[in-house]
Amino acid sequence: MQRADYIICGDYVLTMNDRMDSIKDGAIAVKGAEIIDVDIYENISKKYSSENIVGGKGRAVLPGLINTHTHAAMVYFRGLADDMPLNDWLKNYIWPAENEWLSNEFVFDASQLACLEMLKAGVTTFNDMYFFCDSVANAAEKIGMRAVIGAGIVDFPTKTGNSADDYINNAERFIEKWKKGVRDELITPCIAPHSTYTCSSETLKKSKKIAERLDVLLHIHLSETEWEVSEVLSRYGKRPIEYLHSIGFLDERVVAAHCVWVEDREIEMLANHKVGVSHCIESNLKLASGFAPVGAMLKSGVRVTFGTDGAASNNDLNILGEMSTAAKVHKAVLKDSVALDARTIITMATRWGAEVLGLGKSVGSIEKGKLADIITINLKVPHLAPIYDVYSHIVYAVMASDIETVMVNGRLLINNRMLITADENSILQKAFEWGRKISLWSNGVKG
Amino acid sequence: MQRADYIICGDYVLTMNDRMDSIKDGAIAVKGAEIIDVDIYENISKKYSSENIVGGKGRAVLPGLINTHTHAAMVYFRGLADDMPLNDWLKNYIWPAENEWLSNEFVFDASQLACLEMLKAGVTTFNDMYFFCDSVANAAEKIGMRAVIGAGIVDFPTKTGNSADDYINNAERFIEKWKKGVRDELITPCIAPHSTYTCSSETLKKSKKIAERLDVLLHIHLSETEWEVSEVLSRYGKRPIEYLHSIGFLDERVVAAHCVWVEDREIEMLANHKVGVSHCIESNLKLASGFAPVGAMLKSGVRVTFGTDGAASNNDLNILGEMSTAAKVHKAVLKDSVALDARTIITMATRWGAEVLGLGKSVGSIEKGKLADIITINLKVPHLAPIYDVYSHIVYAVMASDIETVMVNGRLLINNRMLITADENSILQKAFEWGRKISLWSNGVKG
Ligand SMILES: [Zn+2]
Ligand SMILES: [Zn+2]
Repeated sequence: MQRADYIICGDYVLTMNDRMDSIKDGAIAVKGAEIIDVDIYENISKKYSSENIVGGKGRAVLPGLINTHTHAAMVYFRGLADDMPLNDWLKNYIWPAENEWLSNEFVFDASQLACLEMLKAGVTTFNDMYFFCDSVANAAEKIGMRAVIGAGIVDFPTKTGNSADDYINNAERFIEKWKKGVRDELITPCIAPHSTYTCSSETLKKSKKIAERLDVLLHIHLSETEWEVSEVLSRYGKRPIEYLHSIGFLDERVVAAHCVWVEDREIEMLANHKVGVSHCIESNLKLASGFAPVGAMLKSGVRVTFGTDGAASNNDLNILGEMSTAAKVHKAVLKDSVALDARTIITMATRWGAEVLGLGKSVGSIEKGKLADIITINLKVPHLAPIYDVYSHIVYAVMASDIETVMVNGRLLINNRMLITADENSILQKAFEWGRKISLWSNGVKG
Repeated sequence: MQRADYIICGDYVLTMNDRMDSIKDGAIAVKGAEIIDVDIYENISKKYSSENIVGGKGRAVLPGLINTHTHAAMVYFRGLADDMPLNDWLKNYIWPAENEWLSNEFVFDASQLACLEMLKAGVTTFNDMYFFCDSVANAAEKIGMRAVIGAGIVDFPTKTGNSADDYINNAERFIEKWKKGVRDELITPCIAPHSTYTCSSETLKKSKKIAERLDVLLHIHLSETEWEVSEVLSRYGKRPIEYLHSIGFLDERVVAAHCVWVEDREIEMLANHKVGVSHCIESNLKLASGFAPVGAMLKSGVRVTFGTDGAASNNDLNILGEMSTAAKVHKAVLKDSVALDARTIITMATRWGAEVLGLGKSVGSIEKGKLADIITINLKVPHLAPIYDVYSHIVYAVMASDIETVMVNGRLLINNRMLITADENSILQKAFEWGRKISLWSNGVKG
């Protein structure tokens, strides 16, 4: 008998490996940060002993979900301003609020709330783009969540810099501080030039050089709105993706959020250069940005994954919601009820998400030798009864509240739906306190 | 001091009355089936005493949600067949399954599961269309839920009849049995001719006459798919809504589910004749039926409400999900991030839902003299922090799991997220048992 730190078992273990193996009455042995075995429970229970058994009858087990585009700390602006034109929303609410409130303390507190919300919804890794990045990293590390964290780059002054060079210097510092070259490190730093319309060609090229030199991802907003396309067209005579292509920006380091207004030849560019796409459907719908051509992108071999965007435009950080919405909406857009089937959707939210973030060798599937980022779902609830196909349930019926346990890096973070690495109540209390202050300020500004 | 059976209180009481009053730190006094007072908590607590205090700090209180189109018992076919063409789905899965399995026992057991799921998601009234209707009514009554139940009418033979006349006779019998003329009766019977393509003109006219004579609603599927429009066009030379108009079918008794393929002059017909529309967006998306012109319908004064359709095509019975999806999708369809704002969405799901079902005088808002169909939401959860606008939270962030208590007709059915009028576990066990049998049969048929 070998010792395992954990044995995780369930009626269904969906490995999400590239053969799409699923194991009926399966189990996983975890030691340290790693998965050391995956098999039917009968075999695992003969080979391994452990004091910690997770999951069990009536449970489904799958890799943690990957959120490939968010601004975690914006969770404190959730619902601050809804149902309004994008410009009004940004210029009269979000930017003034950021200008007034952002600080290391705000971002640290807010990012903890975001981590708590994401973990409870089965998200084990998120790809962030924001300012005060050390505080995002500190928060994720404190909670125990995996994160790729991009230091935001823009050309205009904000609280954290006066010029592009300030942000770029900060990004270099941030990356050098947090890049440890250890496989099971929770935090992966990267560089995040905000977009083609807020960064000059020079800024984008500098960011790209740093990404190459320091071997990190490039995280950018791309072709989100019709306005953006016409703006970039008028500046450079090219559509945003063509433009990035022309300056040599596109390659497999790039994670491009949105990609809503994309023409066929641009899709080919994304595919040829292996750009990873983060599809943020709920944000795109709520801000009336449009319907990304996900069907066409998938057909061309683009790896499309799911992002929530910030909670100010969503209004949650729930990848299960993105999956369900995308699976349904694109069927109607494509007039094809077979499109984006449940297995494809779950692959996008797990294995592809990890690959696009450069973490494909570490996480995204349940396989021997990978890091143990694993979630269990309680299937014994009214809205999941009866059960014919567990993949279908996960996409079309599972809710965040069905996520029972969440493990990241071999460490149990959520047990029986409660966070065990920090105090949920104090995270909540802090959020309500910040919210009260922001609310008073906001009413004052508006009044 | 007067005695109240219940005092329900919360940080926000959203009355959803026609002035859209919301009461900060509000409370509701309930006696018997009725709301006897609504005011700030301070005043209610001075006037009334009660042993039963529901809600409290950190809670929002609102009218129960109304599901205006479903086939409750189909919940046992949830996930039986997904991601396939509509025709294949209907003809090779759903109809054979119904033919094999439907019985009074099946419908009674399945409808209890549906009631349980809906109540836990804050739905207090549903509008059903199916067969074995006495069993739907018995199940709703047993659980204590409010339901409008339509006896299904088609022209072809099924397990419950051989000809249109069989179904029509059964509908008359069902209505006469269940229509009690008492205001606080939970069950309201009605007649439900399935659609323009499964019922002849004669059948539709007979149904309409019965509805008038017995003073009940007419519940019908209408203009769901492009196929339906071309089928009705080829039979009658008219589009479905025009056709129903031409045979004198349309008036305010009619609840029309779907209305996806609807032209402007048909929208005018719906508006002029005060037809109630049940918008089933998740079903329409998942079956690739299309995007209903909800923006245009609302603009013309059509009362659009929310339905889940059956769980076989959704795959849940969660009106909160329909609200959130509709609020976002129609913004993108209309390219207008202001459209279908949160207050409109909640009105559609509460007051208008009740009005469309002919229950506007009894339920749909929290007002003195109305019946007490009331839900409370726990706002102290990570995905609802912080809070700036409670309406926005309800539409864009609240999940079914946040529904804490549910009262129907003055009776508490859900307390602390658990059903108290029947045993949840035995309802679940029955669902899994039926599911196992159906699964074996389905694998046998497919194999
Ligand atoms: Zn973003
Ligand atoms: Zn239906």
